[in-house]
Amino acid sequence: MPLEAQSALRGTRRGRRAGHGDTRLAILKAASSEFLSRGYDSTSMRGIAKVAGVDPALVHHYFASKADLFAETISAPVRPDRIVREALAGPRELIGVNLVRAALTNLDKPSAQKQFIGLLRTALSHDFAATILRQFMTREVVGKLSKYLDVPDGDFRATAAASQLVGLFVIRYGVKFEPLAKISVEDAALHFGPIIQWHLTGSNDPIDMEQSPRE
Amino acid sequence: MPLEAQSALRGTRRGRRAGHGDTRLAILKAASSEFLSRGYDSTSMRGIAKVAGVDPALVHHYFASKADLFAETISAPVRPDRIVREALAGPRELIGVNLVRAALTNLDKPSAQKQFIGLLRTALSHDFAATILRQFMTREVVGKLSKYLDVPDGDFRATAAASQLVGLFVIRYGVKFEPLAKISVEDAALHFGPIIQWHLTGSNDPIDMEQSPRE
Repeated sequence: MPLEAQSALRGTRRGRRAGHGDTRLAILKAASSEFLSRGYDSTSMRGIAKVAGVDPALVHHYFASKADLFAETISAPVRPDRIVREALAGPRELIGVNLVRAALTNLDKPSAQKQFIGLLRTALSHDFAATILRQFMTREVVGKLSKYLDVPDGDFRATAAASQLVGLFVIRYGVKFEPLAKISVEDAALHFGPIIQWHLTGSNDPIDMEQSPRE
Repeated sequence: MPLEAQSALRGTRRGRRAGHGDTRLAILKAASSEFLSRGYDSTSMRGIAKVAGVDPALVHHYFASKADLFAETISAPVRPDRIVREALAGPRELIGVNLVRAALTNLDKPSAQKQFIGLLRTALSHDFAATILRQFMTREVVGKLSKYLDVPDGDFRATAAASQLVGLFVIRYGVKFEPLAKISVEDAALHFGPIIQWHLTGSNDPIDMEQSPRE
């Protein structure tokens, strides 16, 4: 998240008639500025348009959603919101395995790993970065998982599942513990899928989705 | 891990008769230097004594083991090797819950959290730091868990369990997702204990320790 975005925006760019690339860039810079100063929750597409000096319709023309804009702003290596949306569209008993498979398929690309580690390092180094990331994840990932699960402890279950996924990423791509760093995506999906499923639904058995691990 | 340790050691300290605090510090600096240049596996107590210019018996007088020396060198906020040793000394079916309870009880202290996050950030920023940490964890934690489990995929199981623990630490202390950042140590132990148990033994049921989650 470039800190220079705010000052850059307060220059001559605002309001000037720009080409396609310029407009998109102006919107991205405005978004960066808004996310940084207001956080994810309080930033709106309309507010970004205002800062960029463009019509709100133009922001929507370039970016379908606030999540899209945010992901591009932070150069997100994967789109957890999309991965979750796709997993929730599949069979309920396969959410865990589908989440792991999709996330690792994306993150196994070396450039994505590097971006992920960089992003995590930033979040661990700066409170404001952790806050924005947390707001994004809460709204676009945890909130959606929790709503889908529709149980009283849905938020807890979603963050518990997130903890297993994040830990898997840190061990596989960050500190690279063997053999977890080397097993195939499919082997990882088969081992961690049921664990994620258990966090989310309280069972790793496709037949019985009601049993809680705490019982 | 202070990078200046090596040059500091090549000064007048080596060989000179020192007081208690000086000797201990000289050993720590020598250890830091050796771990940095050789890694964890190839560093020996004898080699550290040589660099520090002291008798090997004196190194053992101040530090019971290489793990102790390493932990002090990196200002380790928790001692995963001790936590694992204690958990393995308890009932087999409670390893998971005992690991989570002990780790979180230690890390819930604000100073320990800060040190843990700093250590993780260092490991994510520098390949050599990740390598030394990985060697330490492989030998003193994963290796011991795996030996105890005594199954063909013991190393995999131990790193899988480590991934859940590390993810829990990152979410609770690093990016602080609610509600995982706020639940009590005991609630966390009750939810994550069986998950760790499952990773390690293939079952969260104290009665049946043989069933694999992959079956």
